[in-house]
Amino acid sequence: MARSLVFLGGGPESLSFLPQKERVFGYLPGFYKIFPTMKRIGLVGATGAVGLEVQKLIKQLKLPYKELRLLASQKSGGVETTCGFVQELIPDSFNGLDVAIFSAGADISQKFAPEAVKRGCIVIDNSAAFRQKPEVPLIIPEINASDLKNHRGIISNPNCCTTIALMALAPLHQAFGLSRFFASTYQAVSGTGLAAIKELDSQIRAWSANQELIPSVYPAPIAFNVIPKVEDFSESGYTQEENKMLFESRKILHLPQLSVSSTCVRVPVFRCHSIAINAEFEKPIDLPTAKKALLDFSGLEFLENQLPMPSLSSEKTSCFVGRLRKDSAFCNGLSLWVVGDQLWKGAALNALQILSLL
Amino acid sequence: MARSLVFLGGGPESLSFLPQKERVFGYLPGFYKIFPTMKRIGLVGATGAVGLEVQKLIKQLKLPYKELRLLASQKSGGVETTCGFVQELIPDSFNGLDVAIFSAGADISQKFAPEAVKRGCIVIDNSAAFRQKPEVPLIIPEINASDLKNHRGIISNPNCCTTIALMALAPLHQAFGLSRFFASTYQAVSGTGLAAIKELDSQIRAWSANQELIPSVYPAPIAFNVIPKVEDFSESGYTQEENKMLFESRKILHLPQLSVSSTCVRVPVFRCHSIAINAEFEKPIDLPTAKKALLDFSGLEFLENQLPMPSLSSEKTSCFVGRLRKDSAFCNGLSLWVVGDQLWKGAALNALQILSLL
Repeated sequence: MARSLVFLGGGPESLSFLPQKERVFGYLPGFYKIFPTMKRIGLVGATGAVGLEVQKLIKQLKLPYKELRLLASQKSGGVETTCGFVQELIPDSFNGLDVAIFSAGADISQKFAPEAVKRGCIVIDNSAAFRQKPEVPLIIPEINASDLKNHRGIISNPNCCTTIALMALAPLHQAFGLSRFFASTYQAVSGTGLAAIKELDSQIRAWSANQELIPSVYPAPIAFNVIPKVEDFSESGYTQEENKMLFESRKILHLPQLSVSSTCVRVPVFRCHSIAINAEFEKPIDLPTAKKALLDFSGLEFLENQLPMPSLSSEKTSCFVGRLRKDSAFCNGLSLWVVGDQLWKGAALNALQILSLL
Repeated sequence: MARSLVFLGGGPESLSFLPQKERVFGYLPGFYKIFPTMKRIGLVGATGAVGLEVQKLIKQLKLPYKELRLLASQKSGGVETTCGFVQELIPDSFNGLDVAIFSAGADISQKFAPEAVKRGCIVIDNSAAFRQKPEVPLIIPEINASDLKNHRGIISNPNCCTTIALMALAPLHQAFGLSRFFASTYQAVSGTGLAAIKELDSQIRAWSANQELIPSVYPAPIAFNVIPKVEDFSESGYTQEENKMLFESRKILHLPQLSVSSTCVRVPVFRCHSIAINAEFEKPIDLPTAKKALLDFSGLEFLENQLPMPSLSSEKTSCFVGRLRKDSAFCNGLSLWVVGDQLWKGAALNALQILSLL
């Protein structure tokens, strides 16, 4: 089993008994150090689904900081979370901050990330606002941490499905050279946000009380249903979410010719995205080498006699991969199934890992 | 929109005002006739999920019959359904019957189908027991009705996912020549049977009452989860369900070289299977031709500005296809999404359609 993020009760000083490379975030290849020097951290979107998970992780991991400034829209100003009171986001909110994690949607990132950078604050952005910009690194620390060195103040956190898919595909790419993959996703409602979590919850309760299921966030009831559309359609017929899987995989893996086709689907699951993948490689594949590559990859757990499932993956720092088999429709291909907590590795955790690398 | 099975309140005589080819089951290409001459029909597995749907369809369609003999295991003997009392299945149950629909699992089919044939009764078998036998036709009436002519007493109904996938792929194959497809399924619990329907129901109620979710039919809770395993594993790492998609597609489409790779997944949906498909063709594809092929195919509805979803497909005789787009990872490829009621077109309805052709 690959080394995974260590949860410990104590503060960073309690990690000193661990070998250097085992400390918190220390499994990141090449970055064998504990959470970096105390920083002044801003959190934009502090009351959203991802913002709350960032705070949960900071508390659970007892990550040290000089300041944690919670920021959100005017309507959330004054709200208290487990980490303190939320302030209304204004351009001057970033004064004196070292780094800010943005999890409030692309519009807010577009508007406020440049304000943060102007004030000397590095931005780690969870939205899609800057991912396509060549000068903005798009980072999964286990895969392309070295791309960080070129950042100019903004670093993008990849799309959650892309991150979870690539956590399984990157080690196989290293072994065999990835040329193409097909992906079908099974995405949890928490990826849409808190309102969608409430929508599934209230539909389930309505159903148990023999009441009607009323959709509001989604175009149809999500309880007992699957909805084959995540985000808006682009001209090609693929959705924005599906386009991200193509574009971001190419950027992160440094494979501009990579072929990707995906279908992104919302399912009535609260947390953790699952992805069925058929992948084609340049070199002949063999299963023992593939298994070893998956077993050895940091942040990934290969399950041989167990099924990766959302029910087992919630609030786990690793992604889980299984159902590995030679693909029957590719010459050099593998079929696999990967599950990850999209609020953690797909968002909050990956952002904190990037922060730990700065 | 393609013609679809017509539901009418009256008996077959009430259809006489319709053009001949619009009558019940009349949309089947080349079989423009109403439900055939009165038959003595047996129904094995009359108290199971599919058996109950066969009876529902017979009643809703007011299909005429001379006799409907309901058969099931000893423990269901004497049970009353909407169509009458259930008798215990014994070899002599088939005496005097013209045709029997088997929906009681492969073991029962293995044991009793030869007994039925011995007694001059044609068997339409929903199980996988005989599908691989070269002398047993495997029929989706809209696709390969002509294969029926070679039957020797047993006719197999295909696997539900195969049927739903091929209802969308067959017209595209006719247009462009199918060479390969990848499929990821989103399968409803009713495909497992009545016990699984109850399991999802009771887990949902338990959750609403803040109680534990206890799995019994499935290896993990199915509520708020997805389980990437349908049926047992074969040596290749594919499951039996996934192997069926390969074998049965080749047989039904008469394409022994067809490449197929699928991942079959159970989702917390009561009814209707959904399938994400990436398909490769021999000829260059163009979207207008593809759309026309789907629009014109009997038993299929192409949705251009709507999403096919389980919530819209329950107790519908058509399958629904949408999300059609040029596949970004195939040269001559299409991505699509198809949904069908696996208890109807995937089982009960397809069996009755086969019966109507005899």
